Order: sequence, then structure tokens, then C-alpha cells
Amino acid sequence: MSTEASFITALRAIATSPAARGLADDAAVLDFGNSQLVLTMDAIVEGVHFLPQDPPDTVAWKLVATNVSDIASKGAVPRGCLLTYPLAEDDSWNTAFLTGLQAACLKFATPLLGGDTVRQPAGSARSFSLVVLGEPVAGVRVPSRTDAQPGDTLWVSSTIGDSGLGLSLLLGQCDASPESRDTLIDRFRRPCPNPALGVAIAPYVNAMLDVSDGLLIDTQRLATASEVAALIELDQIPLSEALIQTIGDSRETRLNAASAGEDYCLLFSAPATAQNALLEAASHLNAKLYPVGMITQGRGLSLRSAGELVDLPPRLGYQH
Amino acid sequence: MSTEASFITALRAIATSPAARGLADDAAVLDFGNSQLVLTMDAIVEGVHFLPQDPPDTVAWKLVATNVSDIASKGAVPRGCLLTYPLAEDDSWNTAFLTGLQAACLKFATPLLGGDTVRQPAGSARSFSLVVLGEPVAGVRVPSRTDAQPGDTLWVSSTIGDSGLGLSLLLGQCDASPESRDTLIDRFRRPCPNPALGVAIAPYVNAMLDVSDGLLIDTQRLATASEVAALIELDQIPLSEALIQTIGDSRETRLNAASAGEDYCLLFSAPATAQNALLEAASHLNAKLYPVGMITQGRGLSLRSAGELVDLPPRLGYQH
Repeated sequence: MSTEASFITALRAIATSPAARGLADDAAVLDFGNSQLVLTMDAIVEGVHFLPQDPPDTVAWKLVATNVSDIASKGAVPRGCLLTYPLAEDDSWNTAFLTGLQAACLKFATPLLGGDTVRQPAGSARSFSLVVLGEPVAGVRVPSRTDAQPGDTLWVSSTIGDSGLGLSLLLGQCDASPESRDTLIDRFRRPCPNPALGVAIAPYVNAMLDVSDGLLIDTQRLATASEVAALIELDQIPLSEALIQTIGDSRETRLNAASAGEDYCLLFSAPATAQNALLEAASHLNAKLYPVGMITQGRGLSLRSAGELVDLPPRLGYQH
Repeated sequence: MSTEASFITALRAIATSPAARGLADDAAVLDFGNSQLVLTMDAIVEGVHFLPQDPPDTVAWKLVATNVSDIASKGAVPRGCLLTYPLAEDDSWNTAFLTGLQAACLKFATPLLGGDTVRQPAGSARSFSLVVLGEPVAGVRVPSRTDAQPGDTLWVSSTIGDSGLGLSLLLGQCDASPESRDTLIDRFRRPCPNPALGVAIAPYVNAMLDVSDGLLIDTQRLATASEVAALIELDQIPLSEALIQTIGDSRETRLNAASAGEDYCLLFSAPATAQNALLEAASHLNAKLYPVGMITQGRGLSLRSAGELVDLPPRLGYQH
């Protein structure tokens, strides 16, 4: 077992509170007062999660957005955040970071409540940590990853693969028109989760999470946690115009998009009977939902295209 | 203005929610459901807050304890914590850290609810971040730093200066008997805040915080936040036997102890009429309270010894 896997196993042995959900969900869910508290904490490290040359305002935006995405996937309204910030020597970096932080806190209605400012010794990669707390709507169950049911339809709430292609463009691995390039890099640097959508559809879903590491790997995790099988229809995966204009629309394109990660959209399963309610809820928010497959009895993940099963790619997403 | 001071000023301009308490209290206090959520986030960095050779179990303990100390000072019961953990290459370090984490979570009844495990690039100082959430007793106001009243008595809940002397021993700046050495280093490495005491006395206090940076500087902060003056009776500051045996009991000893920091005990002001209730509440918990001074009209911090005012030392504590 890897160092990380064995560490997380040991952590789970400590985190025995039911609120921790076995450290296997997107967030902790704690009964609090007459409500429930949804809690997530994600950190980002320079050189691991972002590049030293990334604009600091987008580093702050992404830190907030990735955490808000977890809260959205639990059908909760963000209520606030706390930040651990390693102070940069460079005042302009600090100022730009704060600009992005303020913009993201406003966008996601997630007020900054507190945190800590620390010094790091020279030469250390900068490491930021954020906690976001959320609250579900009274009386609505907080969706977990464990309740997908055979017969459910699988849905996503945005086009897939844009963020990963944005990263490829930044790394010089491909080219795009200026307009597509801007769109795709923006999806990578400034993900835009939609907690209002998560709240609106939570009453109708059986299981929900966010796509952070890749549609394929996150669907596999959903299926494993729910002890069911998942079938994804490759041809139904929604692709953006910018992506298609850049790398076309082939089976390979779709496999790449579905394993690229950082989409930060919702991925959920719901009974077929919920379709109208889901589409109506999304429509009220000018949001879109895309069916991409179904849940069946059994175990594991399958892919289908043009009515035939397709081999899984060797890499389903970003493996932590 | 220093980089940190100007950064925090800019952060305050963003953190305008009343729950943030102007980023000037020990914790954020958010109305949540029919209760209140008390939130604190403190980080520690290798080479800044702890030494690379510190035993990893004590690093974990101290991380939990310093956050619990903030929760205790708001009269709240810890309800859980979330951790950002930079995975070490060294499995034995990770394992020892978890031992200390589990011990502290059990000791302070603060279940681990979630968090994030991250990689750090080689050569980076390790940086840990922890959030602790707490809940006050229903109907009891969460004490702030701003409500000390002229006439209040100032109290602390433990002997002062032991932790700072423990650090001096570790740094080889002085010597002690083996027994005193163990006691004092333990106070530095394994602080032991008492949230049950914070909860028990919260109904009787006007203002409360924890002593993290030094009794003098934290008292000054209390006075400034409350727009009052504070007078500390140097001769009343409680000193441990271990400290007196090591460095004696002189005016200099007392000034050093009162500016050493990391005591992680409660510091509060309460009306004189509350004395019996306070002592009784502490007695039920086998805890001690020590009056150390008083709040008066005016501004600023004064020290008195043997009935005469004493000059403030040039350094009141650890200045962030």
C-alpha cells in the first residue's frame, strides 16, 4: 500500500464519528443545533496544484471554488469560509490574491469568517488551506455517494473536459484559436460550481458528488461506494464548442475529456421518474443537466459507444 | 506598516460579516440553525512554530490544543476538527503524528471529521492547518474581547511562564532539575486547555480570550478591544514550583513569565460580584483560577508590584 493509502487508512481508524462519513464523501456532515453542518477542507500547494506563474487572483478563486464545489455536491448553501494564508514577501502577490479571494467569496456568497496568516521559511512551496461550511435546506437529506440505485440515470451539470484541455494549452501540449483558448483556460483557472443548482436538485437525487478528478474515476467511486454498476454512454458526454473546435469529436477526444478532471460540476444519479423535476429545477436557474449513463445492478464501471462496450482507458482520472 | 499588518487590514476589509468579529477575536461566531457555531483555524509551520526535531506526536497534540484553546476561550464545547496534512515520506513520522492526533482528539473530545492530505515539493517546510468548531451552551452569550468593564477583576486559569521556560530549556538557554525540566517542556509541547472550564465560567465573565502570545500582550489586547485600562499585579501572577525552582522568583522572573507566551490558559475579566460563582464553577472541575489584576477606566496596560507602578518591559509577548 502506498504511503498515502496507508495513511488514509490509519486516519479512517481515528475518524470514527458518523459525521466524518468514513472520510469517503465530499464533505463531513455534522448534526448541529436543529440543522446540519456540511464541512469541507481542501488545500492547494504551489508546484502541485497550481503553477508558480499562475495569476494569484486565479489561485485564490480556484481555492474557494474547489471547496464550494464540494458543498454544492452535498446540496448545501455555503455559509462561510476560513483561510490559512502563507504571507508572500511580494506585496503585489498578496494584493492580487485578495482580489481573487474577494471576487470568489462574493460570487459564491461565501463570506470570509477567519483563519490564520503564517510565515513560511524561504524556499518553501506555498501552501493554502481553506475550509468552507455549508447548510442544507431544512428537511432535505444531504446526498451521499453511497445511495445510487439500479435504474437511476446518471447526470452531469456541465460540459466535460474543458478544464483539462485548458491545462494542456497552458502546458503547450496543443493549440487553439484565441477565443477557444481563453474559454478553456478560464475553465481551468476559474471553475464555477453552482451551489444553487446543488440545492435545487438535492431533493430529487439518490447520490451526488462533484467531478474533481475525472468523470470516469468519479463515476467509478460513486458506483463503488453505492455497491452498484455504472454505465457511461460516451456519445452522450456533453462537450463544449471550444473543445470540439480545438481537438475535434472522436472516441479518443471523449475518453480524454472524461478522464481529464477538474470539471467541478455535479455528478449525480436519480430515478428516471425524477427527470422532469430535475430539468425544471435546473431551468429555473438557467442551468443545464445532461444525462450521461445509468446505474445497474452489479459492480464496476463500463463505457458504451454506438451501442457497443468500449474498453476503459488505462487512466480513469487523476489518482490521488 | 509591515507586510503582515497591511495584509490583515486588507483581509478585514473583505471579512465584513459580523460573524468574523472583525478578525479581532479568538474565533468566528456564526448563527447556525438555532445555535451558534464557533470556528477557529490555526496553522503551524516547521521551523516557525515547531522545530524539525520535535517529536511528531507532540506536533499533532499542540496543533489540536492551540485550536481547542481558542474554542475554550469562547465558552464553547469542541464539536470536531478538520486537518490539512502534508504527507511525510517517512512513514514513522506519519504514524507518530497520528498517535498524537488521536490522543489529543480523545483528550479534548474533538472528533476528526475530515480534511485534506497533500504532497509538498521536496525541501518545503511542512505546514499543518487545523480547524476546530465548537458550540456554546444554549442561552449563554459567547464572550468576546470587547466587553471588559471598569471594576472587573482580571483572572487567569493556570500558572504563567512554564511553556516559555520549557522552550528556553529546549534551546539550551538555561538548566533545570530533571523533574522540573520534564514538567516545563511538557507545558511547552503538550499544552492542555480546558474547554469544560471555559464553558463553566462563560456565564459569569464580561470578556475572555486565551493567553497565546503572553499574559502582558494579551491583556493589552483585551484592554484595547474593550477601550478600558488594565492593571496587572505582578506579585499575584501565579508561578509554578517548577518555574521557581528553576529561575527563582524575582521581578525579572515575573516579567519574563508574563511575556513568554504559549500558556494556552484562559484570561478573562468578570465583575467582583462574580467571584464566588467563578471559584465554585472551577472547583467543580478541580480547576484553579487566579486573580491577577483589574480593569479600570482609561486606556492601556499598567503593571504594579508591592504597591508601586513598574515600567512595562520592552517586549510584552510574541508579536505577530
